[in-house]
Parts: sequence; C-alpha cells; structure tokens
Amino acid sequence: MFLKNCWYVAALDHELIDGKLLGRTLLGEHVLIYRGESGNVIALNDRCPHRGALLSKGRLEGDSVRCMYHGIKYDCSGKCVQIPGQDMIPPKLKVRSYPVVERSHFVWVWMGDAAKADPALIVDFPDLGDPNWQGIPAYLHYDANYLLIVDNLSDFSHLAFVHTDTLGGSEEYAFVSKPTVVERLERGFRVERWHVNSDVPPFHKKVIREKNGKVDRRNIATMLVPGIFYMETLFAAAGQGAQTGNHVGAKEYRNCQFMTPETERTTHFFWSYLNNFEGEDSTISRSLLASLIEGFMEDKEIIERQQQTLEEDPGFQMLGILADAPLAHFRRVLEKLIDAEQRGAAPLTADSRLTTVA
Amino acid sequence: MFLKNCWYVAALDHELIDGKLLGRTLLGEHVLIYRGESGNVIALNDRCPHRGALLSKGRLEGDSVRCMYHGIKYDCSGKCVQIPGQDMIPPKLKVRSYPVVERSHFVWVWMGDAAKADPALIVDFPDLGDPNWQGIPAYLHYDANYLLIVDNLSDFSHLAFVHTDTLGGSEEYAFVSKPTVVERLERGFRVERWHVNSDVPPFHKKVIREKNGKVDRRNIATMLVPGIFYMETLFAAAGQGAQTGNHVGAKEYRNCQFMTPETERTTHFFWSYLNNFEGEDSTISRSLLASLIEGFMEDKEIIERQQQTLEEDPGFQMLGILADAPLAHFRRVLEKLIDAEQRGAAPLTADSRLTTVA
Amino acid sequence: MFLKNCWYVAALDHELIDGKLLGRTLLGEHVLIYRGESGNVIALNDRCPHRGALLSKGRLEGDSVRCMYHGIKYDCSGKCVQIPGQDMIPPKLKVRSYPVVERSHFVWVWMGDAAKADPALIVDFPDLGDPNWQGIPAYLHYDANYLLIVDNLSDFSHLAFVHTDTLGGSEEYAFVSKPTVVERLERGFRVERWHVNSDVPPFHKKVIREKNGKVDRRNIATMLVPGIFYMETLFAAAGQGAQTGNHVGAKEYRNCQFMTPETERTTHFFWSYLNNFEGEDSTISRSLLASLIEGFMEDKEIIERQQQTLEEDPGFQMLGILADAPLAHFRRVLEKLIDAEQRGAAPLTADSRLTTVA
Repeated sequence: MFLKNCWYVAALDHELIDGKLLGRTLLGEHVLIYRGESGNVIALNDRCPHRGALLSKGRLEGDSVRCMYHGIKYDCSGKCVQIPGQDMIPPKLKVRSYPVVERSHFVWVWMGDAAKADPALIVDFPDLGDPNWQGIPAYLHYDANYLLIVDNLSDFSHLAFVHTDTLGGSEEYAFVSKPTVVERLERGFRVERWHVNSDVPPFHKKVIREKNGKVDRRNIATMLVPGIFYMETLFAAAGQGAQTGNHVGAKEYRNCQFMTPETERTTHFFWSYLNNFEGEDSTISRSLLASLIEGFMEDKEIIERQQQTLEEDPGFQMLGILADAPLAHFRRVLEKLIDAEQRGAAPLTADSRLTTVA
Repeated sequence: MFLKNCWYVAALDHELIDGKLLGRTLLGEHVLIYRGESGNVIALNDRCPHRGALLSKGRLEGDSVRCMYHGIKYDCSGKCVQIPGQDMIPPKLKVRSYPVVERSHFVWVWMGDAAKADPALIVDFPDLGDPNWQGIPAYLHYDANYLLIVDNLSDFSHLAFVHTDTLGGSEEYAFVSKPTVVERLERGFRVERWHVNSDVPPFHKKVIREKNGKVDRRNIATMLVPGIFYMETLFAAAGQGAQTGNHVGAKEYRNCQFMTPETERTTHFFWSYLNNFEGEDSTISRSLLASLIEGFMEDKEIIERQQQTLEEDPGFQMLGILADAPLAHFRRVLEKLIDAEQRGAAPLTADSRLTTVA
Repeated sequence: MFLKNCWYVAALDHELIDGKLLGRTLLGEHVLIYRGESGNVIALNDRCPHRGALLSKGRLEGDSVRCMYHGIKYDCSGKCVQIPGQDMIPPKLKVRSYPVVERSHFVWVWMGDAAKADPALIVDFPDLGDPNWQGIPAYLHYDANYLLIVDNLSDFSHLAFVHTDTLGGSEEYAFVSKPTVVERLERGFRVERWHVNSDVPPFHKKVIREKNGKVDRRNIATMLVPGIFYMETLFAAAGQGAQTGNHVGAKEYRNCQFMTPETERTTHFFWSYLNNFEGEDSTISRSLLASLIEGFMEDKEIIERQQQTLEEDPGFQMLGILADAPLAHFRRVLEKLIDAEQRGAAPLTADSRLTTVA
C-alpha cells in the first residue's frame, strides 16, 4: 500500500534525451516517460490497452507515441488518435496519463488522483536550482522496499559501522555523537547531530586541502513523506567554536535523496550531493559522486539482505532501540496518511509539511 | 485449461534420431517420446511411478525403456516388465501411454481419452507430404501462452509494424490492405487479404530474380483449434490481374504453424514454410527458414513481453478493435469446446472442422 | 515439519577456522556458527533482532559478535551487551542461542528445546574418533528434501544402475544380491547385503593392488532418524569363505553420512568415508574422497530431479516395490516421532536407538 496523492521523483532529465521512451515501474504501475518534440515531459501508462504491448517499445511521433504491434497511436493526453485500417476510434481506447512536473533536473510524477495534483505540493529544495550549489544528479536501483532505505537514513549511527572507511570516518561517531535536536513533523522528522573534534571522514578528506586537522561536523537531516530526504552538512575546524556560531572557513554540503517505490520490494533511488566550494571544473562533484556511490553500495548490501530476511521470515519482528524514535515516528505518520487517503481525505497542504507536531 | 481430446504436434521426426529419449512437457504433463527399435514412435508418461525418476534419463531397450534409478523396465504400452531383484510385478506399476501418429515429419500426440483418439481427426495438410512442395520443418520455444501466438497470427496488420523489414515490407500493409473475406468456422476462422501494387517484402525478394517490380500479394489464412495455422500465399506481378484470376508466373508459399501448449505460460511452436519453385537444391528453403526465424524473433519479443504483462497485471483487460473479430471468434469456439469436453461431449468430427458457422 | 528435539550435524570443524562467522540455514532457521576466541563453538540465531541484519556479516569480538549495521553487540549466550549511544539495554533485545557439541570434526547443533539437549543423544560413531580409521570429512549441498537422500541410501540396488562405473561395479548387483537381513529399529533400520563372487567396483579397485580377482562384498548399513547413515563395508577374496567368517586379508571401510535439512527443499550433506589400511600418507583417503564425490554427483542429478518432479506434480504418488520396505519403515518411524514431539513427548533415549522393533 503506497501513498498515491503525492509527488514522486520518477526520472532524471538526462534519462530522457534523444527521444528515449523510458519504461519505468512506479508504485507497481508501468509508466512510460518521455520528452515529446514540444519539449514537454509526458507520462502515460505503458500498456497499449489493445493487446497489452509496451508503449515504451513503440515509436515517438511528435508528442505522441505509436504502439509498434498493430500501429495504434496515442497523443500526449493518452487519447487514441489512429487505428490503422479502422476509421472509428472507440472512446474507451485510451491510456491513462499522469501529471508531470520537471524541476531542477528531476522529473516528478503524481500517481494518484490527477485532479489533486498541485505542483505547490512538490517537496523541492531551492539549492537544487541554485548555481552556487553544484552536484551530479544520479540514480541507483535497490532490491528492497523503500522504507528500509528511509530507516537507514533515519539513524546516522550506522555511519560508524557501515561507512567507517567512506562516509563515516570512525566508529567513534556512534559512541560519542548523538542527535541533539529531534523534531517530529507533521510529515516526517528533523534531526540535528554534532560530532565535535572528530577525524575528517574519507569522502571529505579527498576534496579538501587541509587533510590532517580535526573537525567539528554537523548534520541537519530532514525526512519527509513519502521518502524525501534532505541534509545540510557542515565541517568546521575543531575548536573554532562552530557550535556557538563561528562558521568561518567551514565547508558545506547539501544532500537530497529521493526514494520512489518501484514495487513493494524494489526502489528507485535518486540523489544529488551538492557542494558550494567547487570553482570552475567538476572535479569535486565527480569525487563526491564516486564517494557517495561507494557508500551507498555499503548500504545496499545490508538493506537488500534485510529485504531478503523479511521475505524469508515473514514473522520476524524488529525490536526498537532509542535511536529508532525518528523512524518509528515516520512510519506512524506515513501509515496515518495512507489510511486517511484510503478514506478519501485531501492531500496535506504544502504548508503543513514542515509543521512540528505539538 | 486445455482442450485434451484432440491431436497436438509434439515433436519433429529429426528430434527422435539415434535412440533419443525426448522428455517434453505437453499441456503440463511430462511426456517421454522416442522411436523404438521397431521404428514406431512411442509416447509414455515421463515419470517412473516407483520414485518419480525421469524415464527420459533412462535407457532404451528395444521398444522398451528402463528407468536407470533402480532398473525398472516398461514396455511400449507402459506396462512394467521387470523389477530387478523382485519376481512379482504389481499390476499398478505401469506408466500411462499416449496415442501417437507420425505424419510428414510431424509427430502428433493425443493427450485426452485414448479411446477417442481417431487419426482421422488430425488436421494435416496435404502439401506437407507432397514432393512438389519443399520446406524445412523447424521448432521454436515461446515463454508465452499459446493463445497469444494464435492472436498474433489472427491479425496480419502486425506485419506492417513488427515485420516491416522482414516479412512485411512496408507500413502501408496495415493502412491499405484489409481482410476481404472473413469466414467464421465451427473450429476456427478463415481470412483472405489482398495487398495490391505493393513493394516486394524482404523475405520474398531474397529468393526471386525480379527484385524491383511491384506485386499483388494474397494471403489466405486458416486457424483451427487447438492452435493450427495454415496459410496460402501468392505473389503475382502487379497489374496482370491476379485478383481476377490471372496467376501466370505467380510465386506461391504454403505455411503451416502448430502451437502446442507446454504449460499455461509456455508453448512449443512447430512450423514448416513450403515453396513449390525451388528446383534441385535447398537454397530457397534455407533462405526462407532463416527469414521466418528472423520474423518469429520479432514476434517472440512482443509476445513474451505480453505474457509478462499479463502476469504482472492480472487485472489487465484487453480492448478489442475491428481487426480482432477473428481472434475473438476463435477464443469463443475454443472455450465452448473445452467447456463441452469438460461436460463429457465427444470430440468434433473430422468433417466439421472447415464447416462455416451460419 | 522437522524433528526438532534431536542433534543434527551443522558444520565441519574446518569450516570454522580463522574467526569465520558461518551463516547456515538449518531446518529453515538462520543460524550463525562460529568458534569464539575461547575455542568454544557457538551457535546463535543469525538475525540481529534490532533491524534483522545478518550477524554472520558482523564482527567477531572474543566470544561475542557485533552487528555491523548499528554496532549492537551480543555475547556467546545471545545476550545483548552493548548498544552504541544507549546505556540501558532492553531485556528483550537478545538472540536465541542453540546447544552445540563438537565431536570428531563434526559440529552438532540442537534445534529444539534447549532444556532437552542431552549430548548422550548424539548418534556418534566411535570409528570417527579412532586413529586406526582415516578419512576426510566433507560437505555437499543438495537441492532436494533430505528424505529423498535417505530413500536413496535405503535401497542399494541403485548402485547397479546409478553407480555402475563408480561405486557399483556392475548391474548384476541389483539382480543377484539382496538384503539378507533387514531389521526394523525403533529409530530406523539395519540392512545387511552380500554380493558374492563379484567384480571389484571401480572406487575400490583404485586403492588396492590386486585389481583382477573376484570379491565377496558385504555391506551392513544402519539408518537412524533424523537422517544419519552408517555403513560397514567389507571386501574379501571370493571363495575364501567370508560369509562363514573368514575375513583374512579383507579390506574394510566405515562410511558415515549425515543429512541435515536446510529447508523443506534443500539439504546439507556431510560425510566421512573411512578406511583402516592407509598407512602413512593420505593417498587412499583422497582417492576415496574423489570417488565418493563422483558417485554422489550421480545421485545428486537423480535426486534433485526427483525434487523438481515432486514440486511440478504435487499430486504424484510413489508406488512401492519390495525393496522399499526399509524406507517405508523409516518414514513411518520419523512421522511418529515428529507427531509425538508436536504433542509434547520427550525425545527418545540414547539407548532406544538401536532397539529392534518387535
């Protein structure tokens, strides 16, 4: 059961070049995504309603697509506009179209009731469109339910053990640092965590000059339904008083991650890891991209094995520890929203998203 | 649910050379097919009733087969004739045998009630045994229900889009030509379709001398339950009046295709594509074999993807167009026959097969 | 449904060297087996109860293991002893531990009620720990239910057909030799079988000097629940009167095989094939290891295909022959024990195991 009346990241703009008809499963539905000759991005159900052939194996014609089994053609609204050898077009012969918004390299699709698809509800981040922040949007596929990735991002103590030599830096992170602020939001949570006087983690060390000093590290992470993660990271020289506001010379990152269910047991994972100190070329962005992939692969191995475990042992009951409070809150929020949606409630407003729960 | 009281093509004679014990699943049953030393083709259930070992992994002994797990031996009627180390043979220890008829390189098996297995019910085609018609019988395996292949052969407008560069020739075929005669038969349908003044399709161009002229093309196709297809194809020079009966210099083909269910989701596909203008060597037959395989691979990609779609979206409902009238009739006929068979009705007579529905 | 209150072979000692955290599924449960720094072998459930990560992907610390997702640490009894960043340890956060006994290179695990785990119930064989008997303990994985392997070992007439050129020697074995003694035991059966004046089977011929004579061959096999096989084999020169007690110059083997269910459809298969005439080096043991693997591969092909057959044809009913009496008795015994266990009965005593059924 998924939340339907909300925007999901469905593709990256570079996946849609050169007339590509991208077939992608979203929330268990088979969707065709493409950029028409008008330049608009279009999303249609990927099944020709005639005999079920894939429209993504068809042919782009302007903003329309032709099924290449018997030649039936559909326009960008999903309306059938031609049946070779037949004049009358039955009104039922149409494919579902999905609302689409393209924003800062990401293509968002609305899988629920199209009448409720308000672009203002998109959880977008201004940095993504800010030329001062640079990064390389990227994609990974997970053989795991999207909430297992949400869980992973909800407790950063895993950095210490899973990512010691990549994104974490040392096991000390789990023992010494703790979330200092945990805010429960109407649509997720916000966590702040400092690790003071710590070693520089490997991914960061690669892209800075001063490699040997100690740093004060701050992560402020926000997780919002359905699976949208945003993190501000700051590294300042240890001892300069970063915790009391002196950020002189600090290096900062902005990290967006979008978990979109493919099926109940697989996930599309999109992200962009941004920095604001790159300068002219993209060396730093490319190094960060490589470091993040390295780290995500460490997560992927654990998370995909978790998925297998849950499938093998359907009766397995997870037991919570204190650090699970954010993820437990998130799951309750999501369940409530799905439940409300099933009962016909309107989507939450754009404003509600960062509202703190009383 | 399959029609059982009818003949299915189960093998080609060249598959049974050199004492081969061919294990093949037919209608979900595991069948052993082999040629005994007497020369007769024999079909037995492929499970040793003792511990379920495969008889097709056993050893041929005369017309009998010995299971090579504990050495139990069965004769060509399926009767157990030896148990090593035991004198008394329990009467229950026997394997089912299936009626078999070998005809013109094809081996037909009857999967239903053996008492009803009348060879006169075989839907055979005289051309297959006529030395004036030459071709190379061949086999393909499909990961799709056999009726999706029947569907494919029921609407030749797909030639235009699926087989443009192989069997079709141009997209015009779908837009310009139409079935001129559609006959609904007691056991299937018959369709005639002319495409006048058309380009020569690639598969035909390869085997003729005059490569540049236009042709009038006629296909007369018959499809009969359970999945037996026969087509007469004629190419005459455009303008000579082929439609009004002048077939001078025309080139003709005879095309047989047999769809035999392996399981509910897979199919054995046998065919022979015959020509009558070959002469001494088999160059033309071999070229046609290669062209047909090329074309069938185009179908296979679409049809197997259809099968996947139907498995992924069990609720998917196909919507008909006018060109689907023959396939819709065929499915109704087949359902009625299966239903009648379940209620104990006799198989249709051989004569009824080409009877037109009033 | 498995018998739980009994000992199963779970690993070989050489699988646990160098701090290896061995993840192995036993009776459908995921078990971690390792040798702690104390030298003890420890078996714990392989799931971290926090988020279900594999402890076998964790880190050995002394006799404890640390989950490498969020760093939670468990001692050798399964008790949680550390949660990074959290002082209070919830009492529910523990993993199940399983009783373990290590004996003569084999590691035995008790999957049932730990309170009933009496080491005296282990069906061990003195030869395994006797320096006069030498062999190389080994492991194979089967894609088949363990009882199909038990069946295989319950009727040695299969030697004639499956192992003619490896362990059997000739098809005559099935036709000429028969079990002379069959004892039904409380926990299994015992079978004695002579094959007099027979050719030397290939596996034996490889390790002896006199390669051309005839031999009298005796096998005495015992099969005990849950799947424990023991066989004494003797080869004496034909004609010297081995059947009446003259064993001068005879060569003997001791053969242990242990079938441990991994799941309902897969099995861990452990064995050791011992000889007492090897001398200084291990050439004979290594030759026998290779011969046994060769033979087991012949069994594996048949048995794994049987498993597939039973899955494909769930309605398939095996039909017994006379030689199936031992395996039929074994299945009845096992069913009765499982049934009794489900009703809360105590495990059979160690003494009962070789008791003959009246």
